[in-house]
Amino acid sequence: MSLLVVGSLAIDTIETPFGKVENVLGGSATYISIAASYFVTPVRLVGVVGGDFKKEYIKFLEDREIDLEGLQIIQDGKTFRWGGRYHYDLNVRDTLFTDLNVFQHFNPVIPASFKKTTYVCLGNIDPILQRNVLEQIEKPRLVVGDTMNFWITGKNSELKKTLKLLDVIILNEAEARELTNEPNLIRAGKAIMELGPRIVVIKKGEHGALLITANTIFSAPAYPLENIYDPTGAGDSFAGGFIGWIAKTDDISDDNLKRAVVHGSTLASFCVERFSLDRFKDLTYFEILDRFREFREISKFDEG
Amino acid sequence: MSLLVVGSLAIDTIETPFGKVENVLGGSATYISIAASYFVTPVRLVGVVGGDFKKEYIKFLEDREIDLEGLQIIQDGKTFRWGGRYHYDLNVRDTLFTDLNVFQHFNPVIPASFKKTTYVCLGNIDPILQRNVLEQIEKPRLVVGDTMNFWITGKNSELKKTLKLLDVIILNEAEARELTNEPNLIRAGKAIMELGPRIVVIKKGEHGALLITANTIFSAPAYPLENIYDPTGAGDSFAGGFIGWIAKTDDISDDNLKRAVVHGSTLASFCVERFSLDRFKDLTYFEILDRFREFREISKFDEG
Repeated sequence: MSLLVVGSLAIDTIETPFGKVENVLGGSATYISIAASYFVTPVRLVGVVGGDFKKEYIKFLEDREIDLEGLQIIQDGKTFRWGGRYHYDLNVRDTLFTDLNVFQHFNPVIPASFKKTTYVCLGNIDPILQRNVLEQIEKPRLVVGDTMNFWITGKNSELKKTLKLLDVIILNEAEARELTNEPNLIRAGKAIMELGPRIVVIKKGEHGALLITANTIFSAPAYPLENIYDPTGAGDSFAGGFIGWIAKTDDISDDNLKRAVVHGSTLASFCVERFSLDRFKDLTYFEILDRFREFREISKFDEG
Repeated sequence: MSLLVVGSLAIDTIETPFGKVENVLGGSATYISIAASYFVTPVRLVGVVGGDFKKEYIKFLEDREIDLEGLQIIQDGKTFRWGGRYHYDLNVRDTLFTDLNVFQHFNPVIPASFKKTTYVCLGNIDPILQRNVLEQIEKPRLVVGDTMNFWITGKNSELKKTLKLLDVIILNEAEARELTNEPNLIRAGKAIMELGPRIVVIKKGEHGALLITANTIFSAPAYPLENIYDPTGAGDSFAGGFIGWIAKTDDISDDNLKRAVVHGSTLASFCVERFSLDRFKDLTYFEILDRFREFREISKFDEG
């Protein structure tokens, strides 16, 4: 099935206790598309970059069979740049700079050939733009949206309008609590369902992920990684693995949503093994299937 | 198989957003013994209380077939008293008072009839007293120990001596990180194994629990509770369910340790449904088995 991804493309500078990389590929739509491309091709990408967006980035995306017809390249502009530093405890990070550049006036234009797409994933962008995308396309089978604390606090009422249009919201633990003012995660998840999405996925980092639907609560484990080199993009890789699996199987039953959550966790676990998107340069589908099975091993038990 | 539990018995005053109870039964050994009593009887309890320890508490323990031969009752002393207040976010609590009373000079004396016990669970007491208990008894098949931040910071070298004598350590996430100075939980768990215990169980509250052995990493989900009335004793109920199941089955294989972790989580999930030990007044073994199966449901997925 077809998949449309809309979001940011960025050039990142990242410091972790394990090293520093400057001017590397990043952005929510980048991670989502690359992760999803293991399950469905071509992924249709809509975003904006400047003239400084390197040819090798374009080639990397094209090599993963990502359809770049919707990529706006503003030759005399600069690509969105983000700099961050992770602490010894990788759960803590400081944003060093955020230069929106061409992304500041991003106006997603959906090419005619993308308007009929079965699955849609809206990366973490302004909720007004997320709605703008949905207004341009035929009603898809499933719309997945991501968000962040910035929109929860800064554009709360716009975000709530957008939530009504989403089938699935993917957000992290802190965001779920902030959005609902509810410390209990299960209650937070159910409160989010009342805002619109009928499927809520709460990412809990090293604690795995929760899936909440009308009839199911599913708790997925995290992969027990001992060496996390760079957490950047883990959440977006999760979203890409999640929607990629659903688009591949065209099945939105609760049982398949559980598998999608584990595939999301799988892609996220690979993402953090190297800086930027480097792990996806040689990651194979067979490695993904192997790790999916490892997720089963670490969470399986019987009654004895 | 026989089970010996050593730890505190207390009279608690607890405030949560859902109410307040004064002078109710508490203490680590109390919760551990009661939880374990669903799997193995009689549980052998060693602890100390004052003359103010109510007859109804004694009766409650006896009704759960807990052997109180090792319970010292100091008639002219007062029982250990603890007061705590939980915030709206139940993960945060303030200790309002800690009156050690007779517990301050607790010197565990193991009755002759308890000296040969197959399984031993050392509640969260001074690591010197934990060693003192082990010196009085024949070598058991498995020794499980609990600890807390107070001993990690205040008696670190004594704690490390005790750790060498434990087969299993049960501790929470923050304690595992504090003990090892390692933010990554998997690495923290492995670092703890180097301090002595060959089995490490890390409790993660609403995120479940991790079991780490030489050959296994197991991630157990948390039960998706929406209404937690009182978190007091959840960790001790976990320990009681864990060691109780092991003592019942007399099987320390990795597969059975996984089941023990889920039984621990099961007992903890019941504990928090009411104040103090009230939930254990009518909890049945069939309810425990049902919830164990629910834990499987919320964590099970297939390859599709």
